[in-house]
Amino acid sequence: MNLHGKNFIGDQLSSGGGDILRAVSPLDNEPLPGSFYAANATDVDRAMDLADLAFQSYGKTSGAERAAFLDRIADEILALGDELISRAQLETGLPQARLTGERGRTVGQLRLFAQVVRDGCWVDARVDHAIPDRQPVPKPDLRRMLIPIGPVVVFGSSNFPLAFSVAGGDTVSALATGNTVVVKAHSGHPGTSELVASAVSRAVSASKLPAGVFSMVHGAGKVVGVQLVRHPLARAVGFTGSRIAGRALFDAAAARPDPIPVFAEMSSLNPVFILPQALRERTAQIADGLRASMTMSVGQLCTKPGLVFGMQGPDLDRFQQALARALEAVAPATMLHAGIGESYHAGVARASVVDGVSLLARSLTAADREKTQAESVLLRTDVVNFHKHPELAEEVFGPFAVLISAQTMAELEEIARGLEGQLTATVHGTPEDLESAQELLRLLERKAGRLIINGFPTGVEVCPSMNHGGPYPATTDVRFTSVGTAALYRFVRPVCYQDFPETLLPTELKEENPLHLRRIVDGKSIE
Amino acid sequence: MNLHGKNFIGDQLSSGGGDILRAVSPLDNEPLPGSFYAANATDVDRAMDLADLAFQSYGKTSGAERAAFLDRIADEILALGDELISRAQLETGLPQARLTGERGRTVGQLRLFAQVVRDGCWVDARVDHAIPDRQPVPKPDLRRMLIPIGPVVVFGSSNFPLAFSVAGGDTVSALATGNTVVVKAHSGHPGTSELVASAVSRAVSASKLPAGVFSMVHGAGKVVGVQLVRHPLARAVGFTGSRIAGRALFDAAAARPDPIPVFAEMSSLNPVFILPQALRERTAQIADGLRASMTMSVGQLCTKPGLVFGMQGPDLDRFQQALARALEAVAPATMLHAGIGESYHAGVARASVVDGVSLLARSLTAADREKTQAESVLLRTDVVNFHKHPELAEEVFGPFAVLISAQTMAELEEIARGLEGQLTATVHGTPEDLESAQELLRLLERKAGRLIINGFPTGVEVCPSMNHGGPYPATTDVRFTSVGTAALYRFVRPVCYQDFPETLLPTELKEENPLHLRRIVDGKSIE
Repeated sequence: MNLHGKNFIGDQLSSGGGDILRAVSPLDNEPLPGSFYAANATDVDRAMDLADLAFQSYGKTSGAERAAFLDRIADEILALGDELISRAQLETGLPQARLTGERGRTVGQLRLFAQVVRDGCWVDARVDHAIPDRQPVPKPDLRRMLIPIGPVVVFGSSNFPLAFSVAGGDTVSALATGNTVVVKAHSGHPGTSELVASAVSRAVSASKLPAGVFSMVHGAGKVVGVQLVRHPLARAVGFTGSRIAGRALFDAAAARPDPIPVFAEMSSLNPVFILPQALRERTAQIADGLRASMTMSVGQLCTKPGLVFGMQGPDLDRFQQALARALEAVAPATMLHAGIGESYHAGVARASVVDGVSLLARSLTAADREKTQAESVLLRTDVVNFHKHPELAEEVFGPFAVLISAQTMAELEEIARGLEGQLTATVHGTPEDLESAQELLRLLERKAGRLIINGFPTGVEVCPSMNHGGPYPATTDVRFTSVGTAALYRFVRPVCYQDFPETLLPTELKEENPLHLRRIVDGKSIE
Repeated sequence: MNLHGKNFIGDQLSSGGGDILRAVSPLDNEPLPGSFYAANATDVDRAMDLADLAFQSYGKTSGAERAAFLDRIADEILALGDELISRAQLETGLPQARLTGERGRTVGQLRLFAQVVRDGCWVDARVDHAIPDRQPVPKPDLRRMLIPIGPVVVFGSSNFPLAFSVAGGDTVSALATGNTVVVKAHSGHPGTSELVASAVSRAVSASKLPAGVFSMVHGAGKVVGVQLVRHPLARAVGFTGSRIAGRALFDAAAARPDPIPVFAEMSSLNPVFILPQALRERTAQIADGLRASMTMSVGQLCTKPGLVFGMQGPDLDRFQQALARALEAVAPATMLHAGIGESYHAGVARASVVDGVSLLARSLTAADREKTQAESVLLRTDVVNFHKHPELAEEVFGPFAVLISAQTMAELEEIARGLEGQLTATVHGTPEDLESAQELLRLLERKAGRLIINGFPTGVEVCPSMNHGGPYPATTDVRFTSVGTAALYRFVRPVCYQDFPETLLPTELKEENPLHLRRIVDGKSIE
C-alpha cells in the first residue's frame, strides 16, 4: 500500500504547506504508515474555484451521464479490493465484516442514487401552459424544476468511514443531482479517505468530467473545515458528527454575508419506551434486542438507544436483570479513535456519579485502554431523578444506556414532552399497550424523525421511505433526511422558466416530455 | 367601521399593555380612526402557548377539514365587503382596483391551497414493505410522509396588505399543511389587519377548531417580532420585507439554542437584459412594457425591474428616449407609507449623484410630498461605471430604474457573474439573439429563482410552477418559493414510521390507500 498523503485538488495533488498528520490505529495506538498533508488556504481556494468552474458543465449533465458516473465510482471502490478494507480496519478498529458490509452499503447507495437520477422524476417538473386570452391579463407559460445548488462541502464522518465519508451519503446526494463536491477528509481515517478519493478521481477522469467535480482536502482541527464553510463559492454543507462541531459549522455558515444551508446530523439519545404488557410478555426478547442495538459497532451509531424507559415493578426488575447479564457478557471492543474513547469514558464516569444513579451492568472483562477499548455500561435511575439531572440526557457515544423507571403513563408522556429533538424514538407494546399510548406516540412524533414500534433504532435502511433526521439537536434542519433517496433534496433548488422558447428549455421541461417524466401539468400529475 | 385595536390571542382580545399605535393614511398623512395596542410579552407567550396547544389537534386534522377551513376563511374575507377595501385604501394608498384584484388573489390562493390539501398528494407518501426473509437482516416496514412543523410566525408585509399579510401566502401555506399561525400585523395597515384577523377568527370558530390555530399581534419596531422569532415554541418564520429587517430576523432565529428556519423574501433588482436585435425590432413595445412593469403599484413590488442593460448605440438611444418619454408621462402616485416614501427619495437622490450617472427621466408632474407621492425616475450609466459603484446595485423600492449600456456580450456576462441573488432575471431577444445568449442565461440561472424571456418580471402567478425565491439576498433560503402551491413545503417535515401496526398509521400511509393518493411504493410511483 502506497499512500501519497496529498490533497486532491481536482486532478492535481497538493502537499499543502501546513501541518503533517499521521493516522494512528486505535487497535494499538501506534502510528500507521503514511503522512498526510493538511491543506493550506490556497488548496481550499483552488478546490472551491475548480468546483465552481466544473459546476458550469457538470450541473448541466443529463441524469444518464451522472448515473453512469455514480456506477463507475461504485466499480472503482470495489476495484480497491481488500486493501481498502484492511486500511479501514487499521484506522478505525472496526471489524472486517462490518467494513465489508459498509462497503456494500456504500456501493449500493451509489447504485440506488444512479437509478433515481436515471429515472429523472426527482426534478419535480411542473408545467403550467400559457392562457393568452385570460382576463384581465394573459397567463404566461411557466415551467419549474429542481436544479443543483452549486459546490457542496462534505465532511467525512468518523463512524462510517465508507458510507458517510468521502463517497458516502452526502457526496452521492450532491453528485447525483449535479453538484460538485469538496470533501474534508476525517482525520481519523486519512488513508481510507485517500483510497476512496483516488477511486472517485479515476471515475471522474474515466467519465470525462471536468476535474473540479471532486476534490478532497486533509486537515485536523477546525481550520480547514471553517475555511471551506466560509468560502464564498460554497453553496451548502453536509456534516455528521458531534453537536459542538456541527453547531460551530452551522454558526459559521449562518454568519456569512450570504448564509448557506448546513445539514449537520449531530446528537440523539434515541429513547426506547417499553410498555407494561410488552415488558412482561417479551422480557428476554426485548432485552436481547436492546443489547444488540446498544453494542452494535461498539455503540458508535447515531441511532444507538441511550435512554430506556419502563414501568417500575417486578417485570422491569426481571428485564433489567436480563439486560444486565447480556451486557456483562459483551466483550470490550476497540472504539474508532482515542478521542472518542476518552469522551466515552468521561461520559460514563460523569453519568455514573450523578446522585440517585446506580450501576446495573458493566462488561465483565475489563477494557484494555491501550487498545482503545470500551466496556458496555448500563445505569439505572427513576423519572424523578432523571428530571432533576438534565446531564443524564446528554449523548454518550458508545455502548452505554440509562434505564429509567416510571410509575405512570403520565410520567412517560412528561418525559416525551421534555425531550430534545431525536433521530428516532421507539415504543415496545402489545396492541393493548399501544392503544393506551396514543398520546405518547403523538408527543414523540414532534420530537423525532423516525418512530419505531417493537423494533430497534439501529440499522438505517437506504430507501425512499427512510428519514434520518429530526428536530434540533438531532440535526440543524428538521426538513431533510441524510439517508435514503430523499437526501438528494438537500442540495437542489427550484427554478421557474417563464415563456422560454422550446429550444432553450431544459430537456425535463420540454413540451413533448422526451424523458417521459411524471410531471405536474396544469395542476395534474401525468406521465 | 368599528375597530377595537386589540390583539387576537386565540379567541380572546387583549389590549396589551405597551404602546398605542395609530394608522396614518399616506394619502394625506393624517391619522386614521382607531387606536391599536402593541402586544406585550404576556400576549406573545399566550399566543404561542395557544398555538402549540392547538397544534396538537389541528396538526392531525384531515386535508378535507383544513380545506373546508381555508374555503371558509375566503368566504369570511369576501363577507367583509367594501369595508375591507376602503380601509386598505386609506391605510396603504393603493387604488381600489388594485386592492380588489389583490383580494381576488388572496381568496383564490386560499381556494387553490384548499384544493391541494383536499387532493392530499402533497404529503409525498412513500411506502417500503417489509422483507422478513432478507439476508443478512430482515427489512422492516417503512413508511414516510410530510407532516406539519408546528407553530409558524408570519410577518404581514406592507406591499401586499391582503395577499401577503394576515391571511396571505405565508399564512395559507402554514394553515393548509396543519400548522398553527401567529401573525405579527404590519404597522402600516393595522385596521386592514384587524378586519382580516376577525374574518379568520370567525372561520376558526365556525370550523370548530381550537382557538389557538390563529392569533394576531400588533407592534411597531422590532420588539414584538423578535420576541416571536425567539419564542421557544416557534417552529418557523415567514417574512417579506426589507433586507435589513429580514436579516435581523434570520440572525435572531439562527442564534436560538435551537435554530429554526426563516423564510425571508427581501431584496431584488430584477435585472432586464435587452439583446441587440430585440432592442432594434421591438423598441417601443419593450419600452412600454418596462414602463408598466416599473411603475405598477408605484414600483412597490418585489419583482420590479430596477436594472436594465442594453448595447450602446443608436438603438439604445431610441429605446432610452421612448422609455424616458413614457416615464415622464407617469403621474406621481402615493406610496404605502411615509417611511417607504422617504427611503425612496433618499435612494433616488443617492443614486443620482453617483459619478458618471445621468438623469434620463423624471415624472413631469412634481410629486406632492404631503400625499406621500413618488415620481418615476430613470437614470443612465455604463457598465464600467456600474462596476465602479456597487451602490447602484442596491434596491431602490419604488418606480425607479437604472439603464446601463454595455459594449459587448462579454460585458453583459460579466455583469451577470457579479450579480447578487435575485428573484427574477429577464432577457429580451429574438431567436438569433437568444442563440448567442446561452452563456448569459446559464449565468443568470445561478443568480435568480425565475428566468423570463421576452416578458416582464412583475405579475407573479399563483400556480404549481411558480418560483418566487432566489439566492441570498433575494431570500434567506434558495430552496423554497413563497408564492405558488410549492410554498407549502416550507412548513413541513418528513417523518418515517417503522413497523407501525395498520391501526396506528396515519390515513395517508395505510396499506389500502383509502385517500387514493399517488405514493411511491417500493420505489415505484403508483396511485
